[in-house]
Amino acid sequence: MTEKPAVSDPGDPPVGASASAASAFADPAYRVAIVDLLGGLAYSEISAFERLTEDSTKAPTLQEKVALASMAAAEFGHFERLRDRLVDLGSDPFEAMQPFHAPVDAFHAHTAPSGWLESLIKAYVGDGLAADFYREIAAYVDVDTRELILATLDDTGHAEFVVDRVRKAIDDDPRVAGRLALWARRLMGEALSQAQRVAAERDALTALLVGGVDRPGMDLAAIGRMFSRLAETHTVRMAALGLQA
Amino acid sequence: MTEKPAVSDPGDPPVGASASAASAFADPAYRVAIVDLLGGLAYSEISAFERLTEDSTKAPTLQEKVALASMAAAEFGHFERLRDRLVDLGSDPFEAMQPFHAPVDAFHAHTAPSGWLESLIKAYVGDGLAADFYREIAAYVDVDTRELILATLDDTGHAEFVVDRVRKAIDDDPRVAGRLALWARRLMGEALSQAQRVAAERDALTALLVGGVDRPGMDLAAIGRMFSRLAETHTVRMAALGLQA
Repeated sequence: MTEKPAVSDPGDPPVGASASAASAFADPAYRVAIVDLLGGLAYSEISAFERLTEDSTKAPTLQEKVALASMAAAEFGHFERLRDRLVDLGSDPFEAMQPFHAPVDAFHAHTAPSGWLESLIKAYVGDGLAADFYREIAAYVDVDTRELILATLDDTGHAEFVVDRVRKAIDDDPRVAGRLALWARRLMGEALSQAQRVAAERDALTALLVGGVDRPGMDLAAIGRMFSRLAETHTVRMAALGLQA
Repeated sequence: MTEKPAVSDPGDPPVGASASAASAFADPAYRVAIVDLLGGLAYSEISAFERLTEDSTKAPTLQEKVALASMAAAEFGHFERLRDRLVDLGSDPFEAMQPFHAPVDAFHAHTAPSGWLESLIKAYVGDGLAADFYREIAAYVDVDTRELILATLDDTGHAEFVVDRVRKAIDDDPRVAGRLALWARRLMGEALSQAQRVAAERDALTALLVGGVDRPGMDLAAIGRMFSRLAETHTVRMAALGLQA
């Protein structure tokens, strides 16, 4: 299964990734990769905040507006933690976010919701996919970064209201299910396409996942398995909504 | 100075307002007034959140967008606390907010910023005025409600970045000062006008401030003095921006 030199541990999750923050950051390439990772996550969070609040202005009721706004506020909280961590690492957060403007902005430009149900599904899919990815990536970073990443997962669950709302809409008119399933597939496809773009452009970040000669990481097959796991939990979430993934 | 029966204590702040929550809520009129107060504040906060995030999409830089979004997120935090308190009191928060849709929406409709500097000044004036009003009102409510209201003041200070930004704009082009001073006056005038509308329409809320026969409150002269104090601190804030109030 492994395509990498035997010097690193090819299993997932890797053993060496449990290294203390101090020893991990002694490697300049690791520092670059973590700044890249945190910068990418930070820009994704501030963008999610912005799009969710924009979408929330179109809510049919104040209750639903508040529900979406509460997801947005949680994303902003994540952004603040990631930004503060970048500052602690001596990095300029706005510089660290810069390389991710293009892919994240492109994702949102290609997935502008055309109605309230599409907004809800985008919020739900995005929230779930982000949480899954955070959980996956946590295994490949130092202890301090891992704690930061796992802490952002503590305040999830804001998206649960979406399930009731979407299921009810499908009960009322079963024909919407097909259109919404298509929409969810487009969201997932666009997310993967922008993730590939990032992987192709950001060598340090990719090296963090695939590992270096002296640092364990996922091999390419393991990255493939990670994408499979992300797709599987996406399918479970879609089923919860009453949609085929 | 007092125009009220001597049975209540006309001084400000009133002594009797320190009553425990349990004894205060034994009075149904007091409960109605507090639900009205919290409902009005909650709707003001969720609206502030919505307008600030809308304005933040027009920020000239990501740094300034984040600064305004961080004020918005703080307002959302205030909203959540007020909403949770309404639920604790056995009240439906959305019903409690309903009577305040018209005045708060009218305030925002009449004060849509026409540029980034106007957005910044609206955020700064609104944030300051809200904090001052929270401090004033805290003296007239039961201990539990007071703690809630004072807790929302702990996370202010988000607006400080506005001062540098506006002063710099005035340094760059002193002609903007006149236009911005006019804008700040319009904001203050519109806020007072909607506050008067609320006072005229919401008897229970007004009674909380002016007091009932068996409950101390502010007399009308004291309310006048409160408005004077709000105007004074507004003038100080305007001076900090380099603007004449």
